[in-house]
Amino acid sequence: MTLQTHARFVTLEGGEGAGKSTVLAALREFLLARGFEVVSTREPGGTPLAEQIRGLLLDTHHEPPAAETELLLMFAARAQHVREVILPALQRGAWVISDRFTDSSYAYQGAGRGLDAGFIAELERRVVGIAPEMTLLLDIGVAHGRERTRGRDLAPGGNGPDRIEREQDQFFERVREGFLARARAEPRRFRVIDATRPVDVVAGQAVACLRELAET
Amino acid sequence: MTLQTHARFVTLEGGEGAGKSTVLAALREFLLARGFEVVSTREPGGTPLAEQIRGLLLDTHHEPPAAETELLLMFAARAQHVREVILPALQRGAWVISDRFTDSSYAYQGAGRGLDAGFIAELERRVVGIAPEMTLLLDIGVAHGRERTRGRDLAPGGNGPDRIEREQDQFFERVREGFLARARAEPRRFRVIDATRPVDVVAGQAVACLRELAET
Repeated sequence: MTLQTHARFVTLEGGEGAGKSTVLAALREFLLARGFEVVSTREPGGTPLAEQIRGLLLDTHHEPPAAETELLLMFAARAQHVREVILPALQRGAWVISDRFTDSSYAYQGAGRGLDAGFIAELERRVVGIAPEMTLLLDIGVAHGRERTRGRDLAPGGNGPDRIEREQDQFFERVREGFLARARAEPRRFRVIDATRPVDVVAGQAVACLRELAET
Repeated sequence: MTLQTHARFVTLEGGEGAGKSTVLAALREFLLARGFEVVSTREPGGTPLAEQIRGLLLDTHHEPPAAETELLLMFAARAQHVREVILPALQRGAWVISDRFTDSSYAYQGAGRGLDAGFIAELERRVVGIAPEMTLLLDIGVAHGRERTRGRDLAPGGNGPDRIEREQDQFFERVREGFLARARAEPRRFRVIDATRPVDVVAGQAVACLRELAET
């Protein structure tokens, strides 16, 4: 596969309440202002079929999936997302920014649910085959992040927390540590951003990371 | 896991038009008449969540899944089916008869779609962990099987062929050969039944196989 000069694949990771949506919007605006094509997408989801899989994963009125089922549904959606959206966009020279990607499976299904990281790596190798060039990890303590999402969940018209968001704090502590361990293991790819700071400061730091990538 | 004396796990495999539904009904009747608890189930499906995954796999109005997505959705449904239905039934001493199981993934996604059998074996080991004691393979030539299903598909109120049933004959030739290769590799587990014969003869042979298992 030959990529155009400007094609870049960037992912945003982090727990709930870290401000990923605001940061994603700022990154998109920065790139569009520079004249790049930008595909901003999300996981689980990103294609019609993958969004239906997302519904099975996150809706609270379904039969809850076993941990192994959850992992395979995540990778089924990702396999589709990579082939239908991410690779075609990169091949035509676009920037792709994904709200969550494979690191989330290591953090949530691996560290969080206790599934074997070796199996997750095998799934990554067999059905994903690509990794982001840069991953922005928005790091925030579990209690602090929860406090931020509470207002959103209780807002009129809000959907309330999804199935995974309803997990206990201990689960999210393991998820956070899982993300930080990934960042320590791959310091060249990861940028860890302190997401406890005001959201415009966090977005500014994220844009600075992207500027660095755009200029290399 | 300690299984009760009578717990047995049997699967039915084969292509379209082989008569699996009729055979399943005959097996069920035979076992019920002997006083066994029988759980007859099917794949993809068998639990509410797994049946929803089945819909994503087989409906013709969805975005078609990539081969890798199809494989992972099959195993996601199977992981759920094993944990929610098959293992609990075996643990309380029931017979479980499943219309399709892991052999279908080797035949359809492996031999049919060309996905690596080593990866399928890894998924089987990691998320399934059990194999049937006996597998009845109802073998029929592709053209012959298609002829039998044509009447069903065109019947008033019929749904017509599903997404996988709409594949070309070459695909089903590879699937058939995939099943026969599995049977040759595991002759103790498989019973290959000539499904070109009248359906009551086929059902009688299947019941004879089950009787043999019930008496061991």
